[in-house]
Amino acid sequence: MKLDNRGLLIVLSGPSGVGKGTVRSALFDMPGHDLVYSVSMTTRAPRKGEVDGREYYFVTREEFEKRIQENKFLEYAEFVNHYYGTPADIVEKQLAEGKEVVLEIEVQGALQVRKKLKDDAIFIFIAPPSISALYERLKARGTESIEIVNARYEKAMREIKLAYLYDYIVVNDTVENAADKIMAIIRAEHAKTERTIAEYNKLLGITEMNKKG
Amino acid sequence: MKLDNRGLLIVLSGPSGVGKGTVRSALFDMPGHDLVYSVSMTTRAPRKGEVDGREYYFVTREEFEKRIQENKFLEYAEFVNHYYGTPADIVEKQLAEGKEVVLEIEVQGALQVRKKLKDDAIFIFIAPPSISALYERLKARGTESIEIVNARYEKAMREIKLAYLYDYIVVNDTVENAADKIMAIIRAEHAKTERTIAEYNKLLGITEMNKKG
Repeated sequence: MKLDNRGLLIVLSGPSGVGKGTVRSALFDMPGHDLVYSVSMTTRAPRKGEVDGREYYFVTREEFEKRIQENKFLEYAEFVNHYYGTPADIVEKQLAEGKEVVLEIEVQGALQVRKKLKDDAIFIFIAPPSISALYERLKARGTESIEIVNARYEKAMREIKLAYLYDYIVVNDTVENAADKIMAIIRAEHAKTERTIAEYNKLLGITEMNKKG
Repeated sequence: MKLDNRGLLIVLSGPSGVGKGTVRSALFDMPGHDLVYSVSMTTRAPRKGEVDGREYYFVTREEFEKRIQENKFLEYAEFVNHYYGTPADIVEKQLAEGKEVVLEIEVQGALQVRKKLKDDAIFIFIAPPSISALYERLKARGTESIEIVNARYEKAMREIKLAYLYDYIVVNDTVENAADKIMAIIRAEHAKTERTIAEYNKLLGITEMNKKG
């Protein structure tokens, strides 16, 4: 029985190369959940096969900047002359429908969301099992030069120091372990008294207003 | 990979008749955990077959009262001229060894523990799926008179109003659901940043002292 019908906003983040995308995939492959992936908004043109509202919401630069003015992004950034952002109103609608909205974003974006939402989202930091594992992953990624790998490594080393700002730290030792732990976090968060007490009181006909003292 | 080697103190509580014992049994029957049941201390004499340190720690009244003076109980109460209590030092030793210590106690005892430990234990309130289900359970319990059933029901009705003082509310709709959810809570609590950050920093060789701002 569920005492909490609103979905949770789950921010999955972690350093470059930690395997956020793989963990997120494994999480979505698990049975019996109501997870949805947050679709970003962008000003770049759709590529062949991309559908508006599926890969991205495609908007004009004017529209995007208007939304920035109206404070309608949980986070946004500009890369190579194009904006990318998480539309707050769309996320809010999904949460109200009981969907668990998963945001898989970089550390800087996660910190923007944290600033905006404080305790209204669950911040999970995906950590590498060791520095050398992270470096190996960054190297194995592609055919980039050693300079690019090292630059990514420097960035990752700055990012791993920000784990303390998150609610949970989950080590990506195996993808299955990490996904399992994240699912446990989601289930536990839904049982928290702050999220369940209203429905609980209704269910049992408790009318007094109790205040935590 | 575990970033938190200390065990958790898990307080399972809820109104009379909610099925705390059954949920606790189901929890202990689950695979792959490090749960231990907290053994109470008592001044009553051992019954046939009872072993000191297994069913209870059996002590004299003088010993028990000395321990009360020394503040060595997480909670205690006197029933029918005998003391019963949870020995703080034994629990602490088990937690340090990485055991998850489960305390299955009544609401009044749980509130004593809460007062003593604040955020150092996880307080889970096991709730009935409905008032009528609770009443049926209290009636089905034994051969007691309707007066005794009603007295228990009155007590349970006072207890259900105290759920807001707990960290989590778990509905005992089915024993399996409740036990599953409690296990998720235990796993999630171990991933909390406040419990993992020290080991995480050590693992990744992070030496700066970061303070949450």
